[in-house]
Amino acid sequence: MSLGIAVIGTGRMGADHVRRIDSVIGGARVAAVADLDADRAREAAAGIEGCSVHTDPAAAMDAPGVAAVLIASSGPAHEAALLEAFARGLPVLCEKPLTPDPAGTLRVMEAELRLGRRLVTVGFMRRYDSEYQELQRTLEQGELGRALMLHCRHRNAQSPPFFTTEMLIRDSVVHEADATRWLLGQEVTAVQVLRPRPSSGAPQGLGDPQLVLFETSGGVVVDVEIFVNCGFGYEVHCEAVCERGTASIGAGSGLVTRGAGRAARAIPEDFTVRFAEAYDREVRAWVDGIRRGRVEGASAWDGYAAALVCEAGVRAQECGERVGVELPERPALYA
Amino acid sequence: MSLGIAVIGTGRMGADHVRRIDSVIGGARVAAVADLDADRAREAAAGIEGCSVHTDPAAAMDAPGVAAVLIASSGPAHEAALLEAFARGLPVLCEKPLTPDPAGTLRVMEAELRLGRRLVTVGFMRRYDSEYQELQRTLEQGELGRALMLHCRHRNAQSPPFFTTEMLIRDSVVHEADATRWLLGQEVTAVQVLRPRPSSGAPQGLGDPQLVLFETSGGVVVDVEIFVNCGFGYEVHCEAVCERGTASIGAGSGLVTRGAGRAARAIPEDFTVRFAEAYDREVRAWVDGIRRGRVEGASAWDGYAAALVCEAGVRAQECGERVGVELPERPALYA
Amino acid sequence: MSLGIAVIGTGRMGADHVRRIDSVIGGARVAAVADLDADRAREAAAGIEGCSVHTDPAAAMDAPGVAAVLIASSGPAHEAALLEAFARGLPVLCEKPLTPDPAGTLRVMEAELRLGRRLVTVGFMRRYDSEYQELQRTLEQGELGRALMLHCRHRNAQSPPFFTTEMLIRDSVVHEADATRWLLGQEVTAVQVLRPRPSSGAPQGLGDPQLVLFETSGGVVVDVEIFVNCGFGYEVHCEAVCERGTASIGAGSGLVTRGAGRAARAIPEDFTVRFAEAYDREVRAWVDGIRRGRVEGASAWDGYAAALVCEAGVRAQECGERVGVELPERPALYA
Amino acid sequence: MSLGIAVIGTGRMGADHVRRIDSVIGGARVAAVADLDADRAREAAAGIEGCSVHTDPAAAMDAPGVAAVLIASSGPAHEAALLEAFARGLPVLCEKPLTPDPAGTLRVMEAELRLGRRLVTVGFMRRYDSEYQELQRTLEQGELGRALMLHCRHRNAQSPPFFTTEMLIRDSVVHEADATRWLLGQEVTAVQVLRPRPSSGAPQGLGDPQLVLFETSGGVVVDVEIFVNCGFGYEVHCEAVCERGTASIGAGSGLVTRGAGRAARAIPEDFTVRFAEAYDREVRAWVDGIRRGRVEGASAWDGYAAALVCEAGVRAQECGERVGVELPERPALYA
Repeated sequence: MSLGIAVIGTGRMGADHVRRIDSVIGGARVAAVADLDADRAREAAAGIEGCSVHTDPAAAMDAPGVAAVLIASSGPAHEAALLEAFARGLPVLCEKPLTPDPAGTLRVMEAELRLGRRLVTVGFMRRYDSEYQELQRTLEQGELGRALMLHCRHRNAQSPPFFTTEMLIRDSVVHEADATRWLLGQEVTAVQVLRPRPSSGAPQGLGDPQLVLFETSGGVVVDVEIFVNCGFGYEVHCEAVCERGTASIGAGSGLVTRGAGRAARAIPEDFTVRFAEAYDREVRAWVDGIRRGRVEGASAWDGYAAALVCEAGVRAQECGERVGVELPERPALYA
Repeated sequence: MSLGIAVIGTGRMGADHVRRIDSVIGGARVAAVADLDADRAREAAAGIEGCSVHTDPAAAMDAPGVAAVLIASSGPAHEAALLEAFARGLPVLCEKPLTPDPAGTLRVMEAELRLGRRLVTVGFMRRYDSEYQELQRTLEQGELGRALMLHCRHRNAQSPPFFTTEMLIRDSVVHEADATRWLLGQEVTAVQVLRPRPSSGAPQGLGDPQLVLFETSGGVVVDVEIFVNCGFGYEVHCEAVCERGTASIGAGSGLVTRGAGRAARAIPEDFTVRFAEAYDREVRAWVDGIRRGRVEGASAWDGYAAALVCEAGVRAQECGERVGVELPERPALYA
Repeated sequence: MSLGIAVIGTGRMGADHVRRIDSVIGGARVAAVADLDADRAREAAAGIEGCSVHTDPAAAMDAPGVAAVLIASSGPAHEAALLEAFARGLPVLCEKPLTPDPAGTLRVMEAELRLGRRLVTVGFMRRYDSEYQELQRTLEQGELGRALMLHCRHRNAQSPPFFTTEMLIRDSVVHEADATRWLLGQEVTAVQVLRPRPSSGAPQGLGDPQLVLFETSGGVVVDVEIFVNCGFGYEVHCEAVCERGTASIGAGSGLVTRGAGRAARAIPEDFTVRFAEAYDREVRAWVDGIRRGRVEGASAWDGYAAALVCEAGVRAQECGERVGVELPERPALYA
Repeated sequence: MSLGIAVIGTGRMGADHVRRIDSVIGGARVAAVADLDADRAREAAAGIEGCSVHTDPAAAMDAPGVAAVLIASSGPAHEAALLEAFARGLPVLCEKPLTPDPAGTLRVMEAELRLGRRLVTVGFMRRYDSEYQELQRTLEQGELGRALMLHCRHRNAQSPPFFTTEMLIRDSVVHEADATRWLLGQEVTAVQVLRPRPSSGAPQGLGDPQLVLFETSGGVVVDVEIFVNCGFGYEVHCEAVCERGTASIGAGSGLVTRGAGRAARAIPEDFTVRFAEAYDREVRAWVDGIRRGRVEGASAWDGYAAALVCEAGVRAQECGERVGVELPERPALYA
């Protein structure tokens, strides 16, 4: 039975989660959506069988079949929605930040502690990025020794108009705060910020970029370049400097390790690793097509043409000469 | 309503497709499985609600709710299964090769032509690989001019025991045959094979590696290194040499283009591109956890710790000094 | 005592060699130059102490102090100049090709055989390229096993106006012919050429690009993309596919080896490797400056400023705080 | 006339400079060497025509033909040697640091100021590294906008036994101090040092690694990882983060720029760029061989074999078929 989810908030992130639950991942369905803007909620729910539309988060959580809650509303609305979910004993995935300030987060945490069991998962998505996961595994395996430093880069092409200097920390560096804790299994014990002269490409008044420095409980020093108007694109790098080598991600080549005189990246073991995502996308595209009444992708003609090429190839292996491929006229059905 | 699929063949590939339809992608469910080995079929179907188990492909296609067929049985069994699907008007995704020889493929194609509409999709998964798709778009956009050559490398760490010299073409180079046709929109008109002295790492009698050369209807020359016992891993490269530059994939850095004095790779525009897959995996992991009765991932404690770090960070922005982070004892619930 | 060299031919390559002998490398001097164009010869020799100017190669070889000959004249003039050098027992470095046709080369070789000792060195400069040398050492050490294939790319941005289809082989692929022989220690036993439809970026009538295939005495298959109007720059790649891995050069990352599940490049052992060339250039620039009456490069002021920064750095190590650097006014002498 | 140089100090660096002046670069010769250890001095001078050997630096500077001085003795000996060179009006290249402490450097600078003309060049060799020079040019051209941050990594495989925590700054980070000033054309105005828990791979008592932070007169923030026991090799990275992109060096791919949605490296324009160093090494190797009485490198036989391959290649172009290459027996002279 698929898991019925109430999605609270159908703005950019929320609508994207609705699409994801409805058509990308398996095992779940959108059972209800809620948004203060009823039109926006209706639009997000359009075409989803059995999805009810609400303006009140609590009403959405009470809709039939709801067994879990995904909160993607604005930060200030999180606390109330979390407490409503707790009241119903529903597990909840909440976009970061849990609440805009530590006091609210503390109240949420204390409420969960009173329940005596975990219901909350915070949406720090980097923990699910394949490069970050490889980095985490590499650090955990310990072949490179203990981590000594992390060098992080966090770059956005352009910041949205409402962005403030504080948000460089609260909205952006918060990801490095969590990634540091998760990668190292240590707490951050001190923070310092160095502020170069701001870029002329940043909006007036925004102190962009900055160099944020963390110290951790295990004596690791972390430097984070946060630059939300770098102009050229989105990049998230992280290099862990360890006692016997380094491991870095985010520079376009996957996980690169330095150690014993070499900089190296792993080569996949076999096609199931290399093309894992391609298989997922292939079957998903085929299913989506059929549901829309279409048969797409490589046709029987494509299979036939490939077979004739292989036939010629096998003859060419044997004779050592150039072998022509004779293809009949392509039927109109496969045009 | 999710699409009911009958999966024919539950060996390695088939069982993987069952898992994919059941728990990875959305919008579909495994309604029936068939395998000559009933135990293997039962094992693949275990735990899937409403999935019937068969030894006869036709019976599986007749099971309630079946609206599409995925064929992953051995090559010689494909033709019969395809014709059964045609008899029921069911769309079918068939693993390559469609049939082991061109004559069988021709019969399948003729049967589909008699139906007068497409039902078959052949599982050439490279067409769904994100690097191949970028390469295809790059060629289609035409900024680099017309393609003149393709350089392809197709390397497996090790071939299975039953592999023959012919299978280098039929099982391996068949992917390059399809990729060549798909990338260029041209037919292969001739094939030649050069055979270096075989590697001592290849099984006795296997002519591995080989250099396979295609000519196409548009005058493109394609060279394919096929090496199924390269020993070091799985790699699929392709470089398209065009009139004004080249575009290559498969060397661990995504799509790299050469043109106008530079070799370059694209930087993602924003986080929705960079972390698209991470969001999918995050929500999928959360759903899977809940279905198994577990709440996992970043906890309220993690949210609280990150909030305290951000709070210190904002103070550090303002004062320019090192600011300590005071964390309370971690509650046992979040240990 | 430095070696006196007669440079025959002072066109582009010859003039460059004159400059190289005069001011780049040590242990040699240009004792004489010869060119049919006396003005061009004079220009090349300008400012070189003790360098005589000639129009006749033989006269240049007879000039006082000449102990070796460098031939950089046009191909058809090589044979006569080589025989003149032989007549004088002078060692000779001759730009490739030794002569424009095999018959001439055979005569030169037979003349040298009659002398009974080697005098000729052919200017295949790739043998001196650091990447090629690393590749050669890697193949020789044998860790990757026997070589099975070479994949070569040879690309020029644009061909000169006089370039012909034959010259793709004689002027360009000749480098791969030598590199193949040198890297593998094997002879080329057969050649085949595949010709895609020519690029519209190539001059009318020039069959550019081509795919040239070599077979060698050791059963290695070599493919060479020759493309002399690729438009985007100059590139020379070579990947050696061996029994247990591959080694490739020319893609901008030095020597990259694939083996045992990793693609890797070497990291230099120490600064003498990493900055070897920088030290050479530093001392050369200093010497050149002094000879032109100038003292350049980092000044005492630069040394002083760096010292003050280090002083502050050491204090900062101790106190853990930010330490300011107080620099006096910069004296005008160091402006 | 070549420049006569007195080399003061013939330890590791000094002996390397003697070799460099004698046999690598042109236009200069070692006229005298001095070392407190007379044997070491003699050994360095062995085989160099006209090179006198001294224990007293002043005596070496007074030797016939000396027109410039290269100081490579230990730091504490620099000041006296510099003042001796000043007394003789000789230009001097002095290895860094100019003197071990700022007070001594100030005295040297003041002495030079009294002379009223520059004689000193400090050996900051990074200014001559081709990657650093490209980076400097890129910053100067200004296409990426003003520099905002520099991220530097400075890693040694292992520190020598006598290395102290202070030397991390004075001996190692001094290079980044100079590089920062030179790349940016700005002064360093403050320094801070963050010290992670030392690596267990570092000698007891050595605070290794550290993160050194510079602020500059133009508001640039610079972070320097100094790690002199990283274990895996020698690496010097530098990434300049600018208003419209970044430029980085040291990661094995030359200069990489990020800007306008792409990460890119330059492709050489032509072979004179790509193989510039190979030509230098070719002619140098030829000259060195002749001076040692040897003719080495590609022989007439190699030229002949390449010519026969080309001949077959041209025939293969014309006929489109495989053309065999017939090579005669290789004469013993070319074995």
